[in-house]
Amino acid sequence: MKFQAPKGTRDFYPAEMAVRRRIEAAWRDASVAFGFEEIDGPTFEHLGLYTAKSGEGIVSELFSFRRAGGSDDYALRPEFTPTLARMAAARAAQLPVPVKWFAVPNFFRAERPQRGRLREFFQWNVDLLGLEGPSIDAEVIGVAVAALARLGLAATDVRVKVSHRVAAGRLVRALGVAEESVAGAFELLDRRDKMPPDEFTKRAAALGLAPDALARFEAAVRTRVPVAGDLEVLARAAGVHASELAELEALRGALVAAGLADWCEFDLGIVRGLAYYTGTVFEIHEASGAERAIAGGGRYDGLVELFGGPRTPAMGFGMGDVVLGLVLADRGLLPKDGAELLPRPDAFVVSAGEPAAEEELPRLVARLRAAGLHVRHSYKATRNVGKLLADASKQRARWAVILGSELAQGQVQLKDLASGEQRVVPLADVTPTVRRPPAPST
Amino acid sequence: MKFQAPKGTRDFYPAEMAVRRRIEAAWRDASVAFGFEEIDGPTFEHLGLYTAKSGEGIVSELFSFRRAGGSDDYALRPEFTPTLARMAAARAAQLPVPVKWFAVPNFFRAERPQRGRLREFFQWNVDLLGLEGPSIDAEVIGVAVAALARLGLAATDVRVKVSHRVAAGRLVRALGVAEESVAGAFELLDRRDKMPPDEFTKRAAALGLAPDALARFEAAVRTRVPVAGDLEVLARAAGVHASELAELEALRGALVAAGLADWCEFDLGIVRGLAYYTGTVFEIHEASGAERAIAGGGRYDGLVELFGGPRTPAMGFGMGDVVLGLVLADRGLLPKDGAELLPRPDAFVVSAGEPAAEEELPRLVARLRAAGLHVRHSYKATRNVGKLLADASKQRARWAVILGSELAQGQVQLKDLASGEQRVVPLADVTPTVRRPPAPST
Repeated sequence: MKFQAPKGTRDFYPAEMAVRRRIEAAWRDASVAFGFEEIDGPTFEHLGLYTAKSGEGIVSELFSFRRAGGSDDYALRPEFTPTLARMAAARAAQLPVPVKWFAVPNFFRAERPQRGRLREFFQWNVDLLGLEGPSIDAEVIGVAVAALARLGLAATDVRVKVSHRVAAGRLVRALGVAEESVAGAFELLDRRDKMPPDEFTKRAAALGLAPDALARFEAAVRTRVPVAGDLEVLARAAGVHASELAELEALRGALVAAGLADWCEFDLGIVRGLAYYTGTVFEIHEASGAERAIAGGGRYDGLVELFGGPRTPAMGFGMGDVVLGLVLADRGLLPKDGAELLPRPDAFVVSAGEPAAEEELPRLVARLRAAGLHVRHSYKATRNVGKLLADASKQRARWAVILGSELAQGQVQLKDLASGEQRVVPLADVTPTVRRPPAPST
Repeated sequence: MKFQAPKGTRDFYPAEMAVRRRIEAAWRDASVAFGFEEIDGPTFEHLGLYTAKSGEGIVSELFSFRRAGGSDDYALRPEFTPTLARMAAARAAQLPVPVKWFAVPNFFRAERPQRGRLREFFQWNVDLLGLEGPSIDAEVIGVAVAALARLGLAATDVRVKVSHRVAAGRLVRALGVAEESVAGAFELLDRRDKMPPDEFTKRAAALGLAPDALARFEAAVRTRVPVAGDLEVLARAAGVHASELAELEALRGALVAAGLADWCEFDLGIVRGLAYYTGTVFEIHEASGAERAIAGGGRYDGLVELFGGPRTPAMGFGMGDVVLGLVLADRGLLPKDGAELLPRPDAFVVSAGEPAAEEELPRLVARLRAAGLHVRHSYKATRNVGKLLADASKQRARWAVILGSELAQGQVQLKDLASGEQRVVPLADVTPTVRRPPAPST
């Protein structure tokens, strides 16, 4: 019988798992540095949690099911925000202000797998609830940037594209969209690269966007302004007065104070289709525009209320492992063989084959491991110690411990595999010596 | 709209998540110390993977589903062994010998939730493929014990109950069970505490186990022999010759050499119902017999072959988070409030409210975080610095940094929250001082 992993899912052998864990460690370390605390929810939720937020249309994109004999409809989680909003609503009265939460769950989408988009993937979610204002938005953007920096990406490798729903709303209305069509216009503009130009023009016209208005919109979204740059340029391209971009002006100060000016630019083309965003929105893209977005998020002040909690200011983002992995690999920031990221053994214990050595090997290995050391050993005794030492080097051990004829005197050979230096030491000295890192090779 | 987590699943708020991460860290650290490498597979698999191993009867215990418009049947993974065997079979030719893998995935069972048994849970899986023999079995049991020891459990808190399918098979045959009914007898004996005595006696009789044979079996399984004890006692109770327990005798030497004698005992009552075990089997129980098994596993030499690979010796176990968490809590090995396990901030930065302090706060926080430090800060400026320092202590920060009137001279107040010592230092000294751990309080 032969089985494969379901289409769009992945098997993580040790080398691939080490890459995943490296990315997750950067996410976690950045979260902790910024004072966020980890949470998680169930892998599946009541289906209604997702239709409540996104409408019945979401169902076809979900893996949904019932328990045999049960009557509740469940769905594998496609994103974290509904779970987070449900959890925040359930404990609204007891939670501190602000709530700073992060999570690193897996998500599921019943779509056709594509480059950068799988049916199961891992995604970092960061959310700050209870407070609002430009400095809060900058703090949340800052934690995303901190993780990328920890992974070796520089401000020249990625662009954090920042916009604001309120400013973008003024622009869209100035272009002729009626108040009740603003949300629809955001959704259409967000999907403009995903449909034929004809269809886009037709749908835009239905929302009140005439061809000349669309041309002005295109001019505005082609105009990207560095955070330290002149917003007047953007206002002119968009055909609005600079004062109508006041929200971006306020964000500018907070982004500069948070040390993020080099990473960010204003880009009114970032509208984020989802209807629930209410303020700052941002996406992080590879600098040349390759691949899908690395991360996306924004302010969603109404969502906790939707799930039965009080009205709660909230700002958050998601960053998936798939696109980020592609960008890191492309920039040479992941080893060709992920196995290089696996933990290195402190010691590799080999037996030269005498019965006394065979008998001592499991005892010594157990003692070293009980001391918390990472220890591997040969599984076959042989007089060809050279072969065993080659195994020890291949497994990147720091020390080799050779149980040979010296064992009769209570001694073993200890070899520093970096320097090649080898000496005979009493058995009792093995643990303390291996515990100290070997001298760096010259 | 109010939603709850699906029945039998859990929300992990920061305190609960910290407990989960503590358990997972012990699992991971023990795995790495023993030279195992982490893997993972998809959260759902083709349904056929599970029916191939366990028969169609498993389907009612699974959450199974199809993609809308798709024709493949999937199921949420109820255990890891089929995924592991599939992955090993797929790369059989390239894998090293031995393969030493561990995983910490979540699993799903569509059963009625009970104490110690939920619909979604986390489970540590450890498997060693490609080699066999008592020392291999002892190494695998050793990694389970190492994780329990890292969590603070002692040999007196838990019992590792060890048996061997071959020896147990001789016993069962000696009791009158025909060769073709041995597997059925193991399954029945494994479930003997889960059915009414009448039903058990009837089913046992059908397998050839007469009442007097059952009485002998009961005598044998009531007889537990310490690893350093006398196997003759067990042989006598079981009514077999001591030589028929040769496999246990061989295990004894390996368990002693691995330093596991205090933790383990021989217990012929451990048969593990699953048909695929072929040699050593073991379960770990709380010492007084409270709760379900903490862990269970054994040798399964035929499973990789079942999934299309070559015949591969294999030994492994699973240890879930739910029962283990109950045992740890019962022994006082988890803090009453899991939040005590959350990472402590290195610094808590507060502003005394002057505009210059308000302006400096985000800059200083960004610099400290860029240096890799865990930094929190006040979100409200106030002249009541005492209130802010109370917040800093409540969040268990090591240092408080107070941006006050000294800022005009480029200085800040730095308070060691353990000792209460407070001094004025130049802004530039904050990062290096906070990076050094504060002097222990006396």
